[in-house]
Amino acid sequence: MIGLLGGTGPEGRGLGLRLRLAGHDVMIGSRDTARALAAAERVAAKVKGVSVESGLNEDVAMRAETVFVTVPYAGQRPTLEPLAGALSGKIVVTTVVPLQFDPYGASFLPIDAGSAAMEARGILPESRVVAAFQTISAHDLLNPEKRIDSDVVVCSDDESAKALIAGLAEEIPGVRAVDGGGLRNAVYVEHITALLLNINRVYRARAAFRLTGIEDDRK
Amino acid sequence: MIGLLGGTGPEGRGLGLRLRLAGHDVMIGSRDTARALAAAERVAAKVKGVSVESGLNEDVAMRAETVFVTVPYAGQRPTLEPLAGALSGKIVVTTVVPLQFDPYGASFLPIDAGSAAMEARGILPESRVVAAFQTISAHDLLNPEKRIDSDVVVCSDDESAKALIAGLAEEIPGVRAVDGGGLRNAVYVEHITALLLNINRVYRARAAFRLTGIEDDRK
Repeated sequence: MIGLLGGTGPEGRGLGLRLRLAGHDVMIGSRDTARALAAAERVAAKVKGVSVESGLNEDVAMRAETVFVTVPYAGQRPTLEPLAGALSGKIVVTTVVPLQFDPYGASFLPIDAGSAAMEARGILPESRVVAAFQTISAHDLLNPEKRIDSDVVVCSDDESAKALIAGLAEEIPGVRAVDGGGLRNAVYVEHITALLLNINRVYRARAAFRLTGIEDDRK
Repeated sequence: MIGLLGGTGPEGRGLGLRLRLAGHDVMIGSRDTARALAAAERVAAKVKGVSVESGLNEDVAMRAETVFVTVPYAGQRPTLEPLAGALSGKIVVTTVVPLQFDPYGASFLPIDAGSAAMEARGILPESRVVAAFQTISAHDLLNPEKRIDSDVVVCSDDESAKALIAGLAEEIPGVRAVDGGGLRNAVYVEHITALLLNINRVYRARAAFRLTGIEDDRK
């Protein structure tokens, strides 16, 4: 069972959809059971003949073996702090990027921990924290016809958790997982999100990126 | 005439070589005329039948219409400050990234200006500052047989300078220039350099990147 904490937004629903399409049991969490249920129904409606579970974030944290954190940055700490016990020993994938917006576009929001990934690790010292999926368009994930043309850089200090999430990522058609090294490198991937959002403004597009010059086994 | 300020290292010689191959007059600058001459001779040796000029940085700043800053971060301010007058009104392309290294790899060095690009603009208020080429491997630039498989994100608040440098970038075979918006976005590209260096360690490779999902006119 894969859980999406704060999974009612486009990122949570998009990842939930893609992971469900890949055959995993998926459970969408929220602070509000009705919102979680509504989001799960929206996802299930896109995948013929299957269901997606839903529940409060605390129920998702208990039941899922692996959870994704898919809240805006401001929600990461309030979402994770009460779940630290339930998430002990589990793989927690943060997709979060601290961003701020002004009339000139998006910019990276400086935070004490340096990155959302390092902050998540501080909140969940007993969990196996992985950072990934910060740069993939939720809009594209939500369209099951859309082949994702993007690498997903996976950063973690837990090598087996990193490998497991890299494998999950590559179950999404078009995604290649790239080993980004330790969790401290996630800050660079979070910065790429800000760049992509600004490039999207310039090109009126949904940009993603591929690394070149490394062993190429993209699916 | 295109000048390379502090152009005796791999980045300066690599860019000098590629711009010379594209047919531009190139002048390599240094604090030391003998070192500038030696670097110019090394570049010229790779391009049959042509020459590359050399001189002190101040001579390069006077003679070139467009200059590239190709020094390590610690050298950017000492190189540019005395040249602010000579570079007034000229296009100055900074390729600089503030980096620090420890046993775990490279990391972005936090600096007061936020980025090398914004720092360059502060030092050269009368110049047309552009940030570009931070992510291309100097090693690959120095090998004229090597087709560069990379986008170059070009950031500037001066639209015509940005367009001119984007055009120069695309004269290098394999390079596609991407409009990265204003100079403040250069900080994200500088962060990508740190990510690529860390990924190079993981993969024992020389990684670069391409954006996907935007209009594709790569050469």
